[in-house]
Amino acid sequence: MKNSTHNPKEVTGRQAAQLVKENMVVGLGTGSTTAYAIKELGRRVAEGLKMLGVPTSYQSAFLAAGNGIPLTTLDEHPMLDIDIDGADQVANFVAIKGGGAAHTREKIVARSARKFVVVVDESKMSALLNHTVPLEVIPFARKLVEKEVEELGGTTEVRMGVSKDGPVISDNGNFILDADFGAIHDPASLDIALSQCTGIVEHGIFMNLDVVYIGKKDGTVEIMEM
Amino acid sequence: MKNSTHNPKEVTGRQAAQLVKENMVVGLGTGSTTAYAIKELGRRVAEGLKMLGVPTSYQSAFLAAGNGIPLTTLDEHPMLDIDIDGADQVANFVAIKGGGAAHTREKIVARSARKFVVVVDESKMSALLNHTVPLEVIPFARKLVEKEVEELGGTTEVRMGVSKDGPVISDNGNFILDADFGAIHDPASLDIALSQCTGIVEHGIFMNLDVVYIGKKDGTVEIMEM
Repeated sequence: MKNSTHNPKEVTGRQAAQLVKENMVVGLGTGSTTAYAIKELGRRVAEGLKMLGVPTSYQSAFLAAGNGIPLTTLDEHPMLDIDIDGADQVANFVAIKGGGAAHTREKIVARSARKFVVVVDESKMSALLNHTVPLEVIPFARKLVEKEVEELGGTTEVRMGVSKDGPVISDNGNFILDADFGAIHDPASLDIALSQCTGIVEHGIFMNLDVVYIGKKDGTVEIMEM
Repeated sequence: MKNSTHNPKEVTGRQAAQLVKENMVVGLGTGSTTAYAIKELGRRVAEGLKMLGVPTSYQSAFLAAGNGIPLTTLDEHPMLDIDIDGADQVANFVAIKGGGAAHTREKIVARSARKFVVVVDESKMSALLNHTVPLEVIPFARKLVEKEVEELGGTTEVRMGVSKDGPVISDNGNFILDADFGAIHDPASLDIALSQCTGIVEHGIFMNLDVVYIGKKDGTVEIMEM
């Protein structure tokens, strides 16, 4: 599909938003590509589309509200029809997420959706995962998690704020540690190992991608389905 | 060992406190039996014992400070010499903890200690674990966790406050769900399965008990070492 804009993020986000049909409850991801999907959904809602959104962060809640999308919660709608979200890196239907420090709520929403759609531009696609893995960590457990990650062969860095002094604080009130494992040949095992670590609220490896929309530089969108 | 008091919790807590030697850094658990250990440590500190405590909750921090025990943090002392804590139920060196909603920090401290000592009265000992398992849950994920626990064969109840309207909020700002799995024949598998659930910050199954102090009704204390 060709589009009038050549911004791959915009083309991809807008195209993925067409997956949303009348009366769907939709997970609204966080990040720059998803933001285009949210804006497109706002445009369709203005044209008459009936839908409800569940935001994965304050960012997506503010953006959705600003674009006129009616919001709901997982308490009211525990099962979503679809979740549209971005990623920092994708390989073989596994994503690394959390660059925006929102991966805990993003994973809760993704696990609550019948279909998990990831939208990225092609720079995020890789043959092998080697991006740092964001870990949301109880502040009290920082030193323990550093040791646990070291035992798994990784190194960690506490993510520091830029428009805030000291460490980044997540929407849930926790630290983000970026864990470097080099090339991740077996993400399924790392998923399990990190889940077993005490003090990690959630890690940024997402195993359950159903569909990936990939925006190319030439303005086309490739769709990969699991 | 016989003692002047016949309160099994007091006898046990006081006896376990004797494990603390000069210059140790000590995890200070939460709950009624551990409170006697903390008071005994305060008495020994007043007599000249040099030690530092790392509290597992506001409760133990307040109690330790009130009893003159100098406190430190896991940031300053990531490795503790010993951790003394209570439990809701113990079977075969596995404990269920979290009746006081403190099991996340308790597990972080236990995992940071060279030796994890559990102090209980004999009513907490069982041949088989069948106590509800406390789950600390991100409020946003309540419905998802209910579903995840159901898929594992359990039922959940949100723990409600008594001197607070609505649900209990943990020291980390989360909900506590008490999950009933009936008799738990394979706690190691349940430990792994619950760790894999999205939205659970930490669950109340503790696999790594090194020593258990058991206070009997007759005023004696039985010591079981792994």
